Amino acid sequence: MDKNKAQIEQLFVSVPFWDLLGIRVVEVREGYAKLSMPFDNKLTQPYGIVHGGALFSLADSAGAVAVASLVGLDKRFVTVEMKINFLNPVREGVMEANAEVVKKGKTIAVSDIRVENKEQIIAKAIATYIILDD
Amino acid sequence: MDKNKAQIEQLFVSVPFWDLLGIRVVEVREGYAKLSMPFDNKLTQPYGIVHGGALFSLADSAGAVAVASLVGLDKRFVTVEMKINFLNPVREGVMEANAEVVKKGKTIAVSDIRVENKEQIIAKAIATYIILDD
Amino acid sequence: MDKNKAQIEQLFVSVPFWDLLGIRVVEVREGYAKLSMPFDNKLTQPYGIVHGGALFSLADSAGAVAVASLVGLDKRFVTVEMKINFLNPVREGVMEANAEVVKKGKTIAVSDIRVENKEQIIAKAIATYIILDD
Amino acid sequence: MDKNKAQIEQLFVSVPFWDLLGIRVVEVREGYAKLSMPFDNKLTQPYGIVHGGALFSLADSAGAVAVASLVGLDKRFVTVEMKINFLNPVREGVMEANAEVVKKGKTIAVSDIRVENKEQIIAKAIATYIILDD
Repeated sequence: MDKNKAQIEQLFVSVPFWDLLGIRVVEVREGYAKLSMPFDNKLTQPYGIVHGGALFSLADSAGAVAVASLVGLDKRFVTVEMKINFLNPVREGVMEANAEVVKKGKTIAVSDIRVENKEQIIAKAIATYIILDD
Repeated sequence: MDKNKAQIEQLFVSVPFWDLLGIRVVEVREGYAKLSMPFDNKLTQPYGIVHGGALFSLADSAGAVAVASLVGLDKRFVTVEMKINFLNPVREGVMEANAEVVKKGKTIAVSDIRVENKEQIIAKAIATYIILDD
Repeated sequence: MDKNKAQIEQLFVSVPFWDLLGIRVVEVREGYAKLSMPFDNKLTQPYGIVHGGALFSLADSAGAVAVASLVGLDKRFVTVEMKINFLNPVREGVMEANAEVVKKGKTIAVSDIRVENKEQIIAKAIATYIILDD
Repeated sequence: MDKNKAQIEQLFVSVPFWDLLGIRVVEVREGYAKLSMPFDNKLTQPYGIVHGGALFSLADSAGAVAVASLVGLDKRFVTVEMKINFLNPVREGVMEANAEVVKKGKTIAVSDIRVENKEQIIAKAIATYIILDD
């Protein structure tokens, strides 16, 4: 577990886009990851709420870390597609994305992601990843 | 047209998340919008390519501006959900998202979005927006 | 509960497309529904597995019944959009879709759906519904 | 072209689920397919309009035939996931799904699909397919 998280953190030690948005890994287990992103004015759209793109970025990143916990560091993988529903607006606090791998095949992995803010659900997403040969 | 773009730009004059990512409006017509985002290292993930969340942000923003061109400035609307497929990686150049409204009802609007980079398609998306009363 | 299921069944007493595919309601609770569809050769595609369209139909129907359990029978609602991931092929047995409403607003409802076959997950879906005035 | 359509029709000569719904191939070109499904009461839901699952089935099938036109008959492929937006209800006439492959990689293919009914757009979809080794 801790070893797993340490390895994952090594892979994701330098993700410029995470630094830009304030995303960081909170927890990693086999097939599961939790990532967080604190509210910041720089993440907002004209109504003062967090832009959907910032929430997508957090959710996709959590899905990817959950996949990484199963795939390991020697194989590369990328997001094929993702769909997200925005359920409640975010104006403050810390957003947390909980991702669970619901399918891990040889080539395809699928994560189911739930984003929360102060214990309220704010988004639900499904993402598909492809594990590349090399 | 020009009046339309000017009005839209007024609405979107201050979008902190756009400033953070480098997103800006290139063109607006009735039911259509083109937005751009130049490649920048800050937008990348560990493989050196643009993070899917940055592409989603550009695509969703284009879809929203296309909807704004039909809804006007007196009504508010928000993204209900969006799905995006990533088709090719981006390592340089300027990304452009072309959004077309394929349905504008009283309450729901749907945008079809195509993202390109140096004339290659890099992503395809569909987004649903809800137009709020008040 | 039982009253709820009886009312829902009244609404869905005659759904020609359900009869065609063999879909029926198994259970309904506040914000939740389980529907089933037995394997049948008529549901298959060229590889002998159940067609994705049949699984989508089951999942969407479950999502709609779950929404109906909250909206009641006096309001109409329709599916705005749905996304489904196919995780494992189905060659026999009974498919069951479990739908849970993760958001119920004044106008929009969102269902999270999990489809199983012999205790294996075979599909995961998210669906958006619009609740119509009058 | 004609040869292509003949080959495709050979692959899809016996699709039980297509027979059940009334789906058939109208046209096939490199990376493109058009499939049709006539309105029938058996396809409807409680409001008398065509069930979303029937439209999904038509759209997914069109996307698959478009992919088949590029992949050929010696390789197998299956639908990984699909997302569809329902834009207008269908009460009569013939539905036609036009599918175009927007990405064909070694492992992944993506189709963009537009469904029409009497020259009105009724649905828009994106589908992801995986091409299997063997």
